[in-house]
Amino acid sequence: MERLVLHEDPRSGNCYKIRLTAALLGLALERVAYDGLKGETRTPDFLARINPGGRIPVLQIGNRFLPESNAACCYLAEGSALIPQDRFEKAEMLRWMFFEQNSHEPNIAALRMWLRFIGEHKLSPQQRGQILAKRIAGEDALATMDRHLGSREWMVGSSVTLADIALYAYTHVAEAGGFRLHDYPQICAWLERMTTLPGYVPMHD
Amino acid sequence: MERLVLHEDPRSGNCYKIRLTAALLGLALERVAYDGLKGETRTPDFLARINPGGRIPVLQIGNRFLPESNAACCYLAEGSALIPQDRFEKAEMLRWMFFEQNSHEPNIAALRMWLRFIGEHKLSPQQRGQILAKRIAGEDALATMDRHLGSREWMVGSSVTLADIALYAYTHVAEAGGFRLHDYPQICAWLERMTTLPGYVPMHD
Repeated sequence: MERLVLHEDPRSGNCYKIRLTAALLGLALERVAYDGLKGETRTPDFLARINPGGRIPVLQIGNRFLPESNAACCYLAEGSALIPQDRFEKAEMLRWMFFEQNSHEPNIAALRMWLRFIGEHKLSPQQRGQILAKRIAGEDALATMDRHLGSREWMVGSSVTLADIALYAYTHVAEAGGFRLHDYPQICAWLERMTTLPGYVPMHD
Repeated sequence: MERLVLHEDPRSGNCYKIRLTAALLGLALERVAYDGLKGETRTPDFLARINPGGRIPVLQIGNRFLPESNAACCYLAEGSALIPQDRFEKAEMLRWMFFEQNSHEPNIAALRMWLRFIGEHKLSPQQRGQILAKRIAGEDALATMDRHLGSREWMVGSSVTLADIALYAYTHVAEAGGFRLHDYPQICAWLERMTTLPGYVPMHD
């Protein structure tokens, strides 16, 4: 495979997904760190060269640049056991990855960012006005996962897929956003299961 | 292919994506309508039989049920020209579909729902508190698309893909959410291009 470079903020769960996918696949990944909170993904150089959208992660593949964490995971895992071959199971994997970006990350990752990294007293009135809505929607996403995991070991099929990796990233650090994982026993067992995968790497390494 | 049934709210752009994908592929799709605003996707029967998450669309394939609009489109289009074969282009298609669910739909579809179908005077204080944030983020998503379309006819590669279909659904009715499409000339030209595709069906038919 061509040279792989991850343009990331090491605190970001979206960036961690790509590192975890590469680690489970045994792929070498160079890393370049930016501090999103200090505007380092909004410099003219970053916008011109890495991503005009001004966001990380971006997976650099040779001299091509791919934003969006879950798309980068799909690129890396193409043809591997992390993507089911069965047509319906592959669609179910994508189902949970879209769920993650629509119903999970906007709530759970945002509250972690706001409460842990920015600090509640520094939030704008606009952000403060969204906390309750994000709390309710985040609990709903966790409850949906917990119910789904009640009858199964992995989100899709009978082994780990990108759906597990995508959802693991922000779920396992959800307490930094004020969520209580203890309330979700099936999720807790699944989080534990993830750490036993051969090649697993923790978020902060 | 097995019998396909779309469980939908006909006003929903997420549901329309699946109808448009099926139409462009020439696939027959039965339709069952629910009124989400009247709680018809939250009845005990719907939760037990169709989707425990209580949301539409759900694509029924034989006796299996697949929630999440973009996953359903991927299922239907598997092996067709609507999904690029090239590994990088396929990942780019997914990139824009994840962008749609993370940066576009939560803002543009929500404002359309709130302002057109619920009515501003009936919104909760919590919803009203989010309007400005969703306005800013929605304009940012449209600006990102307009910039990207400045140098190309389709979102990915040189022909229509699921990325175009996913983004078309709520973009072409964004004015119902208070967005001014006239401000985005590249988007307007692309919207026009979409309607000329063989098999194209409008949202309200």
